Amino acid sequence: MDSFEEATEAVESVLESFLSSKYDHAMEQGLPGEVTQIIAELIGSGGKRLRPLYCTAGWQAAGGRGLPMPVIRTAAALEMFHTFALIHDDVMDDSAMRRGLPTAHHLLAARLQARNGGAPEPALGKTTAILLGDLALSWSDELLHTAGLDSDLLHRVLSAIDTMRTELMYGQYLDLIATGRPTADMAQAMTIARLKTAKYTVERPLHIGAIMAGAHDKQLAILSEYAVPLGEAFQLRDDLLGVFGHPQETGKDRGDDLRAAKHTTLVALALERAGPAQHTILHDTFGRLDLTEADVRQIQGLLTTLGVRDTVEQLIVERYRRALRALDGLPPPGAELLSALARMTLR
Amino acid sequence: MDSFEEATEAVESVLESFLSSKYDHAMEQGLPGEVTQIIAELIGSGGKRLRPLYCTAGWQAAGGRGLPMPVIRTAAALEMFHTFALIHDDVMDDSAMRRGLPTAHHLLAARLQARNGGAPEPALGKTTAILLGDLALSWSDELLHTAGLDSDLLHRVLSAIDTMRTELMYGQYLDLIATGRPTADMAQAMTIARLKTAKYTVERPLHIGAIMAGAHDKQLAILSEYAVPLGEAFQLRDDLLGVFGHPQETGKDRGDDLRAAKHTTLVALALERAGPAQHTILHDTFGRLDLTEADVRQIQGLLTTLGVRDTVEQLIVERYRRALRALDGLPPPGAELLSALARMTLR
Repeated sequence: MDSFEEATEAVESVLESFLSSKYDHAMEQGLPGEVTQIIAELIGSGGKRLRPLYCTAGWQAAGGRGLPMPVIRTAAALEMFHTFALIHDDVMDDSAMRRGLPTAHHLLAARLQARNGGAPEPALGKTTAILLGDLALSWSDELLHTAGLDSDLLHRVLSAIDTMRTELMYGQYLDLIATGRPTADMAQAMTIARLKTAKYTVERPLHIGAIMAGAHDKQLAILSEYAVPLGEAFQLRDDLLGVFGHPQETGKDRGDDLRAAKHTTLVALALERAGPAQHTILHDTFGRLDLTEADVRQIQGLLTTLGVRDTVEQLIVERYRRALRALDGLPPPGAELLSALARMTLR
Repeated sequence: MDSFEEATEAVESVLESFLSSKYDHAMEQGLPGEVTQIIAELIGSGGKRLRPLYCTAGWQAAGGRGLPMPVIRTAAALEMFHTFALIHDDVMDDSAMRRGLPTAHHLLAARLQARNGGAPEPALGKTTAILLGDLALSWSDELLHTAGLDSDLLHRVLSAIDTMRTELMYGQYLDLIATGRPTADMAQAMTIARLKTAKYTVERPLHIGAIMAGAHDKQLAILSEYAVPLGEAFQLRDDLLGVFGHPQETGKDRGDDLRAAKHTTLVALALERAGPAQHTILHDTFGRLDLTEADVRQIQGLLTTLGVRDTVEQLIVERYRRALRALDGLPPPGAELLSALARMTLR
């Protein structure tokens, strides 16, 4: 596990010094400091740093030695990109909490209200958060452009990043247009999970790391066989946590997926199996903003009775096993590393 | 003027074929087609293509010959970036019209309502438009990454683009936090104009083109002396058009800057010069969403009486002249080209 901590610390240190130089630059130019401060707070508030870890693990699994700075900076660029994705995601879902802290648009609204000494600024919080996300996305590029990759590598890495971004955004788009009208369409729920989580969180970061170590297509294909089922399992776990998880553990409000009427795997299976009376309960729950703890417990009971919880747990285990089997095609140090990372991801 | 038309057509053709391949790819993957269609509609709806034109003019002014594909694709990347900026800008300002057509979030809301056969979807229009903008930003990167620039040039161009993005976003941020509370602070209004327009629309695109032609720092400095005053004049003209322009000409609703209570140069000067009664009229107008044509005409009268309209016209002329004087430092073909482009920009 030490190698994960080492990579995480190196990535965090790159992000801190990058943001601190952005802050200094803003001060010199007389530009507002809260922009960099809030991005730094969001990054500092934690998270598992999965994308940087998959990136450095991809590097190591494909035979890369140590953790040279271009690899660390590329991993840091992925974390900055993820910060962008979270900021916009929280605006789009109008979420209040992330990693146990107020989301970016709430932080900005509070900061700007304090400065203006006036009325609450919820709308201004959201519009400035859109910009804050845009800035984090641009800075993710800047981290990558200044990573010190040689030109052939930079081209290959940029191409993988372009693919990753388009996949994520289509995944998010499908997620948004399905939100508010969940159906029993499990295949669609899995497509969303694949695009917005499996490829974005696991497969592409792993590929990007491996590409930097000179991986060829066959190696990338083996990594995909591990990454895609593992990433799907991660989203299935997240869907479960959305209803069954504890806020202290998830850092988010329990039941938010239900309040938003998200089209998750959990919901698709429940709608497929529910009888007429259960259908009514489910549909009455989806999208209710005033959902209470008691309502959430009722849905928990229903999902358990319908066997949905067990099925999703089983889908997770199957995918986890499939991911581990794919590691048979890798040399031992890489296989061990990725196996440990899979455990950590699903913990 | 022929060379501008040639560049515009070449850029538009690159954008069309890029988006059409993105559309085909989406269809192959079973992904929604409206995403690429709406971006294509927005790009197809016109605009002066100033950023691509400044980019190709920068290339030519610094001695570049013809219009090779890497230059055209880089110019196209700037137009795609601008499409991103307009989409997010319209969401943030909640604008209804752009270039005489509904804005992206209105187009999306209508498209999704038609598909769902149900109630209007204004909120979904906005959230999906945030994603559409994110996608346009990522595709702007992809156009650049695949422009075929050699590695040293790519690094220099990427660095200029990183700078441009950060400047634009700080400009937009300053604009947003000043919106709703305009003051007599003319310097702040000019800082916003410089960041969000002068540097973004003129200086950086010109530099990017010139960098591709191998321009050195001294040449870039001369181009800045032309670009910054010209870009400021462009924003001053835009501020005037926001109150005095005709919707047929601007493609936007007249008085939108007043409805949003934007902190423009026009408003800063008016507040500086207004007597107590005029102050009251101005403050009663700012931020009123139900502003009528008659209200706008009242403000037009006031701005004329206070001499604000004349002063702004004069600031424009001064800056235009300063921009043209800077061209004395350039060889004739570049100077002529940039002089023609300056006229077109302010027309």
